[in-house]
Order: sequence, then structure tokens, then C-alpha cells
Amino acid sequence: MSPSSLSPLPTFIDVLDAAARIAPYAQVTPVLRSRSLEAQAGAALWLKAEHLQRVGAFKFRGACNAVFSLDAATAARGVVTHSSGNHGAALALAARLRGIPCHVVVPEGAVQAKLEAIVRAGAVLHRCAPGIAAREAACAQVQAETGATLVHPYADSQVIAGQGTAALELLTAQPDLDALVVPLGGGGLAAGSALALQGRAPQCRLYLAEPAGAADGARAFARGVLEPDGVPPDTICDGLRGTLGAPNFALLRAAGAQVLTVEDADTRAALRLLWSRTKQLVEPSAAITLAAVLAHRERFAGARVGLLLSGGNVDLSALPALLEGESAA
Amino acid sequence: MSPSSLSPLPTFIDVLDAAARIAPYAQVTPVLRSRSLEAQAGAALWLKAEHLQRVGAFKFRGACNAVFSLDAATAARGVVTHSSGNHGAALALAARLRGIPCHVVVPEGAVQAKLEAIVRAGAVLHRCAPGIAAREAACAQVQAETGATLVHPYADSQVIAGQGTAALELLTAQPDLDALVVPLGGGGLAAGSALALQGRAPQCRLYLAEPAGAADGARAFARGVLEPDGVPPDTICDGLRGTLGAPNFALLRAAGAQVLTVEDADTRAALRLLWSRTKQLVEPSAAITLAAVLAHRERFAGARVGLLLSGGNVDLSALPALLEGESAA
Repeated sequence: MSPSSLSPLPTFIDVLDAAARIAPYAQVTPVLRSRSLEAQAGAALWLKAEHLQRVGAFKFRGACNAVFSLDAATAARGVVTHSSGNHGAALALAARLRGIPCHVVVPEGAVQAKLEAIVRAGAVLHRCAPGIAAREAACAQVQAETGATLVHPYADSQVIAGQGTAALELLTAQPDLDALVVPLGGGGLAAGSALALQGRAPQCRLYLAEPAGAADGARAFARGVLEPDGVPPDTICDGLRGTLGAPNFALLRAAGAQVLTVEDADTRAALRLLWSRTKQLVEPSAAITLAAVLAHRERFAGARVGLLLSGGNVDLSALPALLEGESAA
Repeated sequence: MSPSSLSPLPTFIDVLDAAARIAPYAQVTPVLRSRSLEAQAGAALWLKAEHLQRVGAFKFRGACNAVFSLDAATAARGVVTHSSGNHGAALALAARLRGIPCHVVVPEGAVQAKLEAIVRAGAVLHRCAPGIAAREAACAQVQAETGATLVHPYADSQVIAGQGTAALELLTAQPDLDALVVPLGGGGLAAGSALALQGRAPQCRLYLAEPAGAADGARAFARGVLEPDGVPPDTICDGLRGTLGAPNFALLRAAGAQVLTVEDADTRAALRLLWSRTKQLVEPSAAITLAAVLAHRERFAGARVGLLLSGGNVDLSALPALLEGESAA
């Protein structure tokens, strides 16, 4: 799937535009505190609760911004994507709110619960064979037949700008953060957060929490260049298995972001802590931010730290495995 | 354990006093909404999030009110209870905040995680043999040796008044409710809620959600008299296994409250719904309120309904059993 709008790269102004555009539809999510987590971390923590966003993840922000920035004629032909995860459900809901068609290409074998969420939001499912080539071909076919606009899950300017509104809200509530920790997968949330920091809190350090089992981002930062390294992802953080996008990498490098590599065992422990102490059923891809802070206490000692809890779409059937310490992958 | 202050029965004024007394210490918990739960219920729902209260349950309100209403000389001798559950931890924290000793009598075999929470809050544990007689004897001994004041978990005027502050806050945020659904165990939260309704929303119906496997309350209402019936509780709602207290029953009858008996299977389904749709890790004793609404849709159709989500202290090790449909008792 080729990105729909890569150039020019988005800026802080696009994040402000996105915030105004999605305001009628998206939740301003709460910022949570926890005395006991702060005691464990030795730092002051502000948890941005994107698991309480519509569709249960920050993904709604970017999808909503992409859908509502289309002109009327283009929008009328619909949107298409091939994410069977949160982005698919988010795009489906955004399209329904605008009253336009949404097509989601899903491979055979996709998780039924996620497909149901997409259908519930009103999208048309298109089945295809597994594998990225089959998906892209199916997407291209839908585009050719319907004229629908492709909305990439993360390598898209409007999507990045939309995701940046989460950090923007956090910085509005808490302007004087020393550090912000964001999960790193494809880089939509990370790159959007970088833009928000540049505009609102240039003094605030940006850390990217990435699973050790899907560390293409850390390798790209180490090499200084983004190239496919073909290492298959192996992590409980199912939202962070995608590979870092090109515009995302460019924006994150420019922002001086630092990658913190996190072992799944640490993410699992942080997940348990978040569940038991905050009673918030966040997903592993969200808990990795707390894991990064606890695994690198010395960097955050005494600091004022924001954590982006990216989502809460835990498949309940996967929950026992997450608790028992087995891989839920 | 005999109640510490049964007469006179508390009134709405005591709830107002309690609200002022605990304000410096307790959280004003948020009131949550959920579009998808409302669609399922066919009613407008306001969820009072007491799982976000300190110690993870409404119990902190009553314990805090009881501790801070003691005069200085009495308080200095400390407080004692024999609850190894949320009330024990709540009383321990309240005592720590006032800087007085707290003693908690716990039977051999109590859940280790709960004991750790009590110790973390700074209380002194006193072990005793299992059984109510041994517990009461151990409590009496602590009282004799220390002069500590007994704070009963629910059959206590100050505790009842304190618990009523949760409904008071909900009614301040949302004054025009048609119905309020509260879990029924010993009746502290239920009786306090009845007082809050009398003072703030006399038009609002009060429903008590009680497990079918611990239906001593329903039987007492049916008979019109409270007497021990010796039926051992059998329910996943571990917070609702206590038997209805005398002052609690008197207040609830006077308020015209109605009991809704709920099967564990329905509570389990409601628990899954709350976890997956609201991302809030509430405990079964909280989910029973939603289960009651879903099992009695006709009573609530189109109504404006408040639900008291009483707590979120789920033992994570019990979570898989709750999901798999086995008894977690």
C-alpha cells in the first residue's frame, strides 16, 4: 500500500488544524495520575488515556482527520485501507460519521473480533489472501473500481497530524513536561507527537518505546537510514509490529527522538501494574511506555514525564496468556 | 463484631457532613459514559467510577469518615476491624492519613495479596483462627489491650454516611436520574445511597443488585424482617458475600428500595462488556449493577440510570477463571 499523501511533510500547524477538524467527533481523553506508579518510577507521571478514545485507541484521531480533510467530491467516492486492526475500525467509524463508504481489505485468517468491530462501524470487508502483495493488489482493485482514497495507517500526513493531537491535548493540560514517552510501531503517533512537542514544548525530550522483538526503528536510528531489514516481528505488543514509515522516520530524526528498546517481560510486568493499580485495561502496546520508564529509571529520576497510553483493545481471550507469562502472539 | 455506632440511624445531613469531612482525602471519582453500553441497555447510563477511588473501592469513603469523626483522644488509641478485604485496606489508609494506629484482625488463610495491601497501608495484622467467633474474640482482645475503636465494615452510622457520598457526587453531576442501581452486600453503600437520594433526588428509584447466590437481602425484603437464614453465600461477587446489616436494612426499607436478584452468569457477561467496552477493570461486585439493568431491560427502557461501579480490586490471578466461565469463588 503506497502512502496517500507523503509530501510535503506535516508540521505543527497541521496538528493544530487537525485538532480543530476532529474536535466535533473525537474525545478529549483524560489525563490520569497514580500515586503508586509514581512511587515505583521515582518520577511524576501523567498518563494520557487514549484507550478511552473512540474505537479504544488513538487511531481514531488520524483516521478522522484524514476523512474530514478530503474535499466533498473525493470523499463521496469513499476511503479504503487494509488494516484489520484499530486503524481499520477507526477509519470505518470516521467514514460513517462523514456518511461516506469505507472499504477494508482483510486477509483470510484475521481475528474475528476485530473484523466484527469493523463491520459494526459500517465498513465493507474485502477478503484477500494473506501477504502484503495480495493486500496491496486487493486495495488497488477497490481503488480502481470505486475511486476510493487510500488512507495509510501511519505513513500519511493527515494521519500523522491527527495522531499529534493526543500529545497536543496532554501538553495543554500539562505544559511543563520534561519528557514524553510514546510507543513506536509504524510511527504515526510518534511522529505526530514530535510535531506537537516542537510547537508546544521544545524543551521536552521525546522517547520512543519500541519492543526488542520489533526493533526495526532502533536499527534504523542506529544506521541513520531506513531500509527494510526483513526481521519478522516477535512481540506481545500487537500494535507495534508494523515497520517504521519513511515520513515518520524523517520527522522523528529531525526531532532528535531517542529510542528505548523494551523487553516483552518488562512490558508484561508494566501491564500488570497498570491493570492492578490504575484499573485501566490498556493493551501491551500502551504499557510499553511505563515499562520503558521503569527499565530506565535513571533517565527519568525526579522528572515530569508524560506517557501516551495508546489503546485498550485487548482481546479478552488473550488476557490469561498475558497474565500467565506465555506469549500471546 | 458488634456495630460501633448503630443509633441513631444516620440521615442525609450526616452524608453532607461526611462529604465535607472526607473532601481533603478522598477522590471525587469521574462519571463515565459509554455509547455502546447504552445501545445495549436501551437506557441512558451514568457510571460512577468508584474503582478509581483510593484503595480501589468506595470503602475508603466510609472508613475515612469514621476515622476522621473520632475525637482526638479516642482517635489516638487507634481503630480496629476484622475485614481482610477492601474495608481493611481502606481503614488502614484512613488511619495512616490521620496518623493513628490501625489493627486488622485476619483469619489464617486470607488472600496474601489483600494482606499485603493492608500492610502497605501501614496497619498491624493480628492473625486468628478462621470463623466469625475467633475473629470477634481477637477483635475484642485488641480493643481491650489498646482501647482502639471498632469500625464495622457496614453496620455503622459513620460508615454508611461516608458511603453515601458516592451517590451524592453522582447526583451533583447528574441530578435528574430516574433510577440508581447499587450493589447489595452488607448494605453500607446501599443505605448511604438511599440517604443521598432522599436528600437530593427523591423522585429517583433505588434498585439493589444482589447475587442470586447471596440473596439474604431479597429474602429479608420478602419476609419483611431481618433474621439470619444460614444459607452460605456462593457467588463470584466476592464483595457481596456479607449479610445485610440491621441499620442498613432499616434504612433501605424506609427508602422503598427494590432488590433485583442477579445470576452470576449475567454478572460475568456484564463484566466482560465493561472490560471490553469501557476498558475499566471493575470487579464482579461492580458489574452486577449493569447485569441487573440488562436482565431487567423493561424496567429501565428509555430511563436515565445511574450505576455505582463499586470497586476494581480484581485479583489478577482470578481473572482467567472469570473469563473462562468457571467459578472464581
